[in-house]
Amino acid sequence: MIRHVVHFTWSDAADADRRARTVAALRRLPEQVPGSLAFTVAPDAGLVEGNAQTILVADFPDAEAFRRYATDPVHLEVIAEHVRPFLAARSAVQYEV
Amino acid sequence: MIRHVVHFTWSDAADADRRARTVAALRRLPEQVPGSLAFTVAPDAGLVEGNAQTILVADFPDAEAFRRYATDPVHLEVIAEHVRPFLAARSAVQYEV
Repeated sequence: MIRHVVHFTWSDAADADRRARTVAALRRLPEQVPGSLAFTVAPDAGLVEGNAQTILVADFPDAEAFRRYATDPVHLEVIAEHVRPFLAARSAVQYEV
Repeated sequence: MIRHVVHFTWSDAADADRRARTVAALRRLPEQVPGSLAFTVAPDAGLVEGNAQTILVADFPDAEAFRRYATDPVHLEVIAEHVRPFLAARSAVQYEV
């Protein structure tokens, strides 16, 4: 199984309301883009200074299913509309579990 | 439960052998520093350009157990010796699961 983990840090262009709408759009992704076995979007717990602000964790049965998700046009549209314009930093890893 | 997720990108100061020793040192942490319920260190799967290179995922029963781990002197020593000198970038999130 492939676990896809993304850390997002939002820019000042996104106020609290805009960030909430972006998080909601990310949470709708598994309804719109098939292939994931589990899908979580969560806020950082605020325990440590300097952390990213939002984490997305999604499980896929294999690399091919992840690639289909990553390149799905609906996914790319959500990123272009709700994520990229409000991003200060992004860090991603996919790993075998 | 608190899940602690760190992405590491290693600098050119660390060749493959040095990176392997750093990963081994991270994997020894749960034997040396108490408190985690689960502890994984894994390489990025190499599916996407621009990813971080190593992920660490550790579960703690609560924020207090995470804080004890994070501030444990043995943990800080491992970071100072094996991680910080070879780090190009680091991104972390803790979140409630």
